[in-house]
Amino acid sequence: MNEPDSSLNISIVQHAQQAISAALDEDHPQQAVKALLSLHPADRAEVFSDLRRSEREQLLARLDIAATADLLEELEDKLASRAAETLSNERLADVLDEMEPDEAADVLGDLPPDRASEALAEMEEAEDVLPLLSHDDETAGGLMTTSYIALRPDRTTAEAIDYLREVGPEEETPYYLYVVDASRRLVGIVSLRTLVVSKPDTVIADIMDPDTYHATTRTDQEDAARLMVRYDLAALPVVDDEGILAGVITYDDLVDVLEDEATEDIYRLANVSDADLTIDSPVGLSIRRRLPWLYVNAFTAFFASWVIAHFEGLIAQVAVLAAFQSVVAGLGGNTATQSLAIIVRAIALGEINQGKNLHTVLKEGLTGLLQGIAVGLAAGIGVYLWQGNAYMGLILALALIGNMLLAGLAGALVPLSLRALKLDPALASSVLVTAITDSVGFALFLGLASLFLPYLT
Amino acid sequence: MNEPDSSLNISIVQHAQQAISAALDEDHPQQAVKALLSLHPADRAEVFSDLRRSEREQLLARLDIAATADLLEELEDKLASRAAETLSNERLADVLDEMEPDEAADVLGDLPPDRASEALAEMEEAEDVLPLLSHDDETAGGLMTTSYIALRPDRTTAEAIDYLREVGPEEETPYYLYVVDASRRLVGIVSLRTLVVSKPDTVIADIMDPDTYHATTRTDQEDAARLMVRYDLAALPVVDDEGILAGVITYDDLVDVLEDEATEDIYRLANVSDADLTIDSPVGLSIRRRLPWLYVNAFTAFFASWVIAHFEGLIAQVAVLAAFQSVVAGLGGNTATQSLAIIVRAIALGEINQGKNLHTVLKEGLTGLLQGIAVGLAAGIGVYLWQGNAYMGLILALALIGNMLLAGLAGALVPLSLRALKLDPALASSVLVTAITDSVGFALFLGLASLFLPYLT
Repeated sequence: MNEPDSSLNISIVQHAQQAISAALDEDHPQQAVKALLSLHPADRAEVFSDLRRSEREQLLARLDIAATADLLEELEDKLASRAAETLSNERLADVLDEMEPDEAADVLGDLPPDRASEALAEMEEAEDVLPLLSHDDETAGGLMTTSYIALRPDRTTAEAIDYLREVGPEEETPYYLYVVDASRRLVGIVSLRTLVVSKPDTVIADIMDPDTYHATTRTDQEDAARLMVRYDLAALPVVDDEGILAGVITYDDLVDVLEDEATEDIYRLANVSDADLTIDSPVGLSIRRRLPWLYVNAFTAFFASWVIAHFEGLIAQVAVLAAFQSVVAGLGGNTATQSLAIIVRAIALGEINQGKNLHTVLKEGLTGLLQGIAVGLAAGIGVYLWQGNAYMGLILALALIGNMLLAGLAGALVPLSLRALKLDPALASSVLVTAITDSVGFALFLGLASLFLPYLT
Repeated sequence: MNEPDSSLNISIVQHAQQAISAALDEDHPQQAVKALLSLHPADRAEVFSDLRRSEREQLLARLDIAATADLLEELEDKLASRAAETLSNERLADVLDEMEPDEAADVLGDLPPDRASEALAEMEEAEDVLPLLSHDDETAGGLMTTSYIALRPDRTTAEAIDYLREVGPEEETPYYLYVVDASRRLVGIVSLRTLVVSKPDTVIADIMDPDTYHATTRTDQEDAARLMVRYDLAALPVVDDEGILAGVITYDDLVDVLEDEATEDIYRLANVSDADLTIDSPVGLSIRRRLPWLYVNAFTAFFASWVIAHFEGLIAQVAVLAAFQSVVAGLGGNTATQSLAIIVRAIALGEINQGKNLHTVLKEGLTGLLQGIAVGLAAGIGVYLWQGNAYMGLILALALIGNMLLAGLAGALVPLSLRALKLDPALASSVLVTAITDSVGFALFLGLASLFLPYLT
């Protein structure tokens, strides 16, 4: 049995990787193929991804149809379509026929349109894949597979089990069976367990659960995923606008959506706008996705500079103010980021209750205020001891309290407002909020210093 | 059938909530119970959580054993144990017997020890729950359930199906059946589908898959979750140190771990150290979890102030420097945060390849350098046009390039080093990295300004 110990697992993969590279170097491609096939398909994809392009092509040319299909199913979308492009039309069609329909549709969607239609024309099971190609990637229709088992409600469990024997082996998630009427409208679900433990002559209509959750093909994939998480569903049927069963979302797709969603939120809070960026992305792509946000940040930073520049005369007189202004701006930014993270995560997990938005904003404001008092007192006393000027400590404390109160309010208000405007709350929140806490933080501290100027020199 | 449209769903829940509150206000608790029971258990838990304490207790006193068990299974851990505490020992024992063993163990673990042992003493199925209590919450043992179906390899499929009929209805995930030898050591897995489509007299040993992934009770829950994600496993068996089957982790537990892991990373990058904090946490708790990090931030901010204070004389002469120093520090922080997000996410998703760490650090450094050149040139020209001083533009550009190069390096090096030291890479990274980019940013910009002082005035 395979150990879950990740270090051991990694060493098996790395060992295979070295063996494959060595075999290819020594011109023994058949050995390389053997080493690759000794791995689990998921591990094969990892090893394959790390090979050089020429090595990948050598291997690909020697894999049979089934192994190529397994590999394409496990590869990242971009690598899968690049691998698919190197195959002949006929071979590609065979591979796509062998793949799960949803994975085949993803590969076809990433191919140049003419290659995709050529491959489709050659495919034997194009009808499984074609309906999947019309749906937006981010919808339940784009996520579902057409590989499921549908039954008529007037069948008996014995007939259903015979049918399962006949078609079952190819299906991805045979645990639930979907019951459809003569127009293929979804009328219920029956679990394999219920089928098995019922008497052979039981009619499906009597044991199915007619009251079942479902999505439509146009449901946002994150909404569909939330529904599955909320009600612990291992699979979610997807129907079209007429209620006709179009496909099924399985738990492994759910996991992918949740992972992508989390990556997206982490990236967006850090001003990286493309969730497909990974540690292995080329530098050029990485810069194209990251630099625009740095320009936006530079713009807001210059706005804050412009605020400070108004106090040039003051700073020339009390230069040490330049040292403390950043403390006010920085702690405001940190307080706001804390609120932002909690609100953005609550939005992602569907924990936001519209009626409580005002309450949430006020609560974050109160949290910011109390934290401001705690940090402000400590910092004020610290500065008094360091600089020997009680007024300097006082204005730092007051500015921190004011800015951290504002930070708590803005950290909740900005993402909730973006959401109300149907914008992504994670996307622009951190830039907007930091712009606010920086500019106001500087203005507050330096403004207070102007008022107390006679006591600071 | 229930619509997945989330707004509709929310309105059903809110409607029930209002009906329940109204019924309780008017002293019709039986109506309130009826309204609660009309909802899906997951929705009941949401409504129940939003009620006042006294309302919750009124309802709880009127729910039957099964409904109370359903409710405790769906409630957040803290609310579940608080609700459990209000029950009599006898009633609590009945409720715990009715619950899934892993959920019952979670409730027992959160109760005061004396209440827990009293309840355990009264329970009929304490033997299902007791072994779960000894495992650390964060391990596979703490995550698994003991509710699974185990078979002997010498049974036939017909016998297995009879056995399933007998015990099946109570089990959580009957899709996989676990094959154990006479010492209950795990020897294989058979899916329900395989069982169903095989001939009745087939021996289990002939159709089981002996080469199956598993975790041990002490495997970290995130490692177990990664294994399930990597190999698309709907359930993962957990064995003890002797290889004896101890329990099973199901896909819904996997989803919970992934969600918690993402929350933890998002929070830690934002300096919130407790992943259990939610939008509904009381202000006091929220402050206890957030304030310590703000003190750490204040400490590093004062270190940066101390750096600036060394240039007090310089700033007194060229006060506008105080306006631009924050641009250098801020953009360094933003660049580092981008790298940090990508590295931390790669670590969470298990995409880090130890052998490539140096390559990753250098790549992030290169990205930072190129972004620094792009932003530095634009900012330098901007400042030249604004201030009419080319040297001011030059030193800003040079400081940005240097600080953003450093930011890219630190944004990768810090989390990778923390990971190598077996510390959580998300936890201290953002504080450490920002401390570096702030202090070095100020020192670099003001140091360069000192060198070019004759040209700045």
